[in-house]
Amino acid sequence: MSTPALIALDWGTTSLRAYLLGDDGRALNTRTSSAGIMKLPEGGFDQAFEETCGAWLDANARGKAPLPVVAAGMVGSAQGWVEAPYVETPAGADALVAGIVTVKTARGVTVNVVPGVLERGTLPNVMRGEETQIFGALVASDPSLDAESGALIGLPGTHAKWAFVRDGRIERFYTFMTGETFGVLRDHTILGRTMHPSATHDESAFVRGVDTARDAGHPGMLATIFSTRTLGLTGQLSAEQQADYLSGLLIGHELRGLNEVLARENAALAGKTLALIGNDALCDRYRAALARFGCDDAQTVAHATEHGLYRIAAQAGLVSAPARAA
Amino acid sequence: MSTPALIALDWGTTSLRAYLLGDDGRALNTRTSSAGIMKLPEGGFDQAFEETCGAWLDANARGKAPLPVVAAGMVGSAQGWVEAPYVETPAGADALVAGIVTVKTARGVTVNVVPGVLERGTLPNVMRGEETQIFGALVASDPSLDAESGALIGLPGTHAKWAFVRDGRIERFYTFMTGETFGVLRDHTILGRTMHPSATHDESAFVRGVDTARDAGHPGMLATIFSTRTLGLTGQLSAEQQADYLSGLLIGHELRGLNEVLARENAALAGKTLALIGNDALCDRYRAALARFGCDDAQTVAHATEHGLYRIAAQAGLVSAPARAA
Repeated sequence: MSTPALIALDWGTTSLRAYLLGDDGRALNTRTSSAGIMKLPEGGFDQAFEETCGAWLDANARGKAPLPVVAAGMVGSAQGWVEAPYVETPAGADALVAGIVTVKTARGVTVNVVPGVLERGTLPNVMRGEETQIFGALVASDPSLDAESGALIGLPGTHAKWAFVRDGRIERFYTFMTGETFGVLRDHTILGRTMHPSATHDESAFVRGVDTARDAGHPGMLATIFSTRTLGLTGQLSAEQQADYLSGLLIGHELRGLNEVLARENAALAGKTLALIGNDALCDRYRAALARFGCDDAQTVAHATEHGLYRIAAQAGLVSAPARAA
Repeated sequence: MSTPALIALDWGTTSLRAYLLGDDGRALNTRTSSAGIMKLPEGGFDQAFEETCGAWLDANARGKAPLPVVAAGMVGSAQGWVEAPYVETPAGADALVAGIVTVKTARGVTVNVVPGVLERGTLPNVMRGEETQIFGALVASDPSLDAESGALIGLPGTHAKWAFVRDGRIERFYTFMTGETFGVLRDHTILGRTMHPSATHDESAFVRGVDTARDAGHPGMLATIFSTRTLGLTGQLSAEQQADYLSGLLIGHELRGLNEVLARENAALAGKTLALIGNDALCDRYRAALARFGCDDAQTVAHATEHGLYRIAAQAGLVSAPARAA
């Protein structure tokens, strides 16, 4: 059993996940709270922190210095506890460490807030929290991922990210509003009216959606999504299949777009090795969709968040030893 | 002054527009009601019809046969007054006439309901109401529109349609959920949170959105829409500009998709003559967007709905003389 060494926070818009990490970087305890930064009252950060981590701090006080605390995610945004201005691409772990901004809690503990990453350009991109997971994945995953051609790491979700990492630095990345767009199309447009919820995932409907988006011959996503309805009207898709079909369509459009970006540098998803970070069910969907693009080597990296937070804390001198790969 | 000859109804999901047409096909009177088919109580069609058209029927009774009535739109859907099953592409006005289904009102008047059009395939498409507008536009517009290469007609809106018409028949068409998608992205996603409403249309922001979608180098719509937010975060787009930018992006993605369809038959929007049917402000937006694709010859066709309903009524023998072009 390792000794508690670090409190690590993944503090996003809708939830707060806190890890008590041992001196080997592994989680000794985890607490999840719904105290996302958009749900807190004015000045609510201190209270949410105390409720989630106070007992850990008390138990490990022992008259010594309190446990160090590191936090990543929207907690460092302009709407967060303290703003940690974005560092710009290409961004390595060293830049993230240099960009840490601290805030003192009511009980006098210092919280080290990791900055997000900004890529400038005509289509700028931002991330907060994912940069930490990416560096965690690089620690935890097969070293072959970051070979000379660089690593491609996908983070499915509400706002899916795809990041290109080379020599330990995030070079560029894209944001796809896939999860959020799926939710509003299902819940707020005509497409939801003919859908019936289904307890089981319909793989054939999902794959049909992926293939439809992948194949040439259609005039883009604004048109293909309407087929969710018309395939129902023409008896080709049951009401229970329509949500999985739409999910496949949108993930397919995301991967098609990613593939087009890769094609411009003479690369492709087909045959590529890449890593996924996210919940298992969603990563499974992405793996199934990637297979339709010829990519069969997509590994889901577990514990990327804890690994990333521990690594940054170690590099910042908050803990003594770097975490070992899981 | 012409004599009342036809009651023509454009009866959709959210509204009912009724025209009293003279024997020259021109509107003598118009009434608009919010009695769309999705807003009616069970059995509410008769009452809505009486409230909207009863006075016209009374005033023109004169002991003779009542005015004939023709209706197009969702009123002929499975959720409508009576179902007029779709006719399939390629569909001419003769097929629409042959597909008319009638329903007898409480006062004994016969309503002739025009069927919609279905295009079968892996991405099926359906329209109800637009087919009638399209035939109206062919009557009303420059004959050069339907030259040997066929006509391209756009109907911007909640579910925008683009139809290819040749020799007086709708050969194929596409549906783009542009208007509805814009609405839900603005009202129900993170993109709306940084938008401020603006009383004026920001043409430069709109065109920037169109150009962004048109140009290569981005990984598709799920990615470009996020720039509505990040251009704001980086100070390149004000809160008041973001809705027009997003509108331009989506219309640009629609036209890009249409252009890709055209490219497969060695055609392009650039230099093409086409017609638009819809409200003036929206057609103006589309004309501005089309110009960014090199298409400067997009005419908005007025009164397409009345012309189409009159033409179908004439071809069905409900009125004596075909309408003349406006």
